[in-house]
Amino acid sequence: MPRKGGLFVVSAPSGAGKTTLCRGLMEPAAPLEYSISYTTREPREGEVQGRDYNFVSRETFESLVSQSAMAEWAVVHGHFYGTPKPAIDAVLDSGRDLLADVDVQGSVSLKKNYPEAVRIFILPPSMEELARRLHNRGKDSQEVVAGRLAAARKEIEAAGAFDYAVVNDRLEQALNRLVAIITAHRCRVENSLDLISKLTGP
Amino acid sequence: MPRKGGLFVVSAPSGAGKTTLCRGLMEPAAPLEYSISYTTREPREGEVQGRDYNFVSRETFESLVSQSAMAEWAVVHGHFYGTPKPAIDAVLDSGRDLLADVDVQGSVSLKKNYPEAVRIFILPPSMEELARRLHNRGKDSQEVVAGRLAAARKEIEAAGAFDYAVVNDRLEQALNRLVAIITAHRCRVENSLDLISKLTGP
Repeated sequence: MPRKGGLFVVSAPSGAGKTTLCRGLMEPAAPLEYSISYTTREPREGEVQGRDYNFVSRETFESLVSQSAMAEWAVVHGHFYGTPKPAIDAVLDSGRDLLADVDVQGSVSLKKNYPEAVRIFILPPSMEELARRLHNRGKDSQEVVAGRLAAARKEIEAAGAFDYAVVNDRLEQALNRLVAIITAHRCRVENSLDLISKLTGP
Repeated sequence: MPRKGGLFVVSAPSGAGKTTLCRGLMEPAAPLEYSISYTTREPREGEVQGRDYNFVSRETFESLVSQSAMAEWAVVHGHFYGTPKPAIDAVLDSGRDLLADVDVQGSVSLKKNYPEAVRIFILPPSMEELARRLHNRGKDSQEVVAGRLAAARKEIEAAGAFDYAVVNDRLEQALNRLVAIITAHRCRVENSLDLISKLTGP
């Protein structure tokens, strides 16, 4: 039986460094595919269709939702975002591993649809450090940062239900740990049953 | 609650490279302790008490067995070999990770005593390669090698019950995978519950 790909779901509160970590992971954890979300919002300057997002019409998106074809979806600032099941299945069925970078709610939906998914939560080393990082990005007002911190606290409360937690204190170390989680998963004995039966066969 | 150490149990058929891999693992997977077996056989030239084995009298060994204090034990060529539970508990309770290098039977006993143990099986890439390695060691007769190969086949049949399987094709890659399995285990969310409650606390 050909090996099914692994689904790795990474979630984190805003400011924990998820995007940087996920980008940095693609090469050392290769071969790994990145799950591209579907969205109904307009492409921004520099965004490329099929690389940053799959930009689709509201009709297309709603039709996917009504067919229960979305593995996870959400409305953010009036725009739809989501990941269709057929897109995930195509990768996993071909034996390739897939990385999905979604929020906590999205990870819960993905886990429901894909119980074998490996859920990884990126933790900040401390709330003080998270606040410092959010302030240093400099793009949000004091008020917005306070809102993000309150939201972060709620999201971190859900971390205990994940499989793994990686503290993003030093970037290099956090990356190594993420690569290790993916590498270890590839060594699960289920992936060697073919070799085992070949070795013990007639 | 202080973190309990992880118990990593490595088994393999003779010739699969287990000893080389376990030795090579200690530094890149540090901090990791190596479980030293107890034995009733005499020390060989160059063997050091407490480093290679804990050399004990038959009376001491049998007394440990009769107290059910052995986490695993076996008789090989008339000598007793085993690992006492108190020695394992002392390491795990202090939060340190422990590597135990035992045969398949020993790993079954360890798993019974320590259900949370992570069992890793080292697989040869093929039976032909295993035969080649056993021949190349040059220390066993044709007949002994044939016996070892038959035993290997039986041991590999048990590999499917392990958690992980690592193919020892290229040593460097096999080592990386073993380190990844240990690193990933250290990232299990159970080990971050203290940090999670600190981050979400008042």
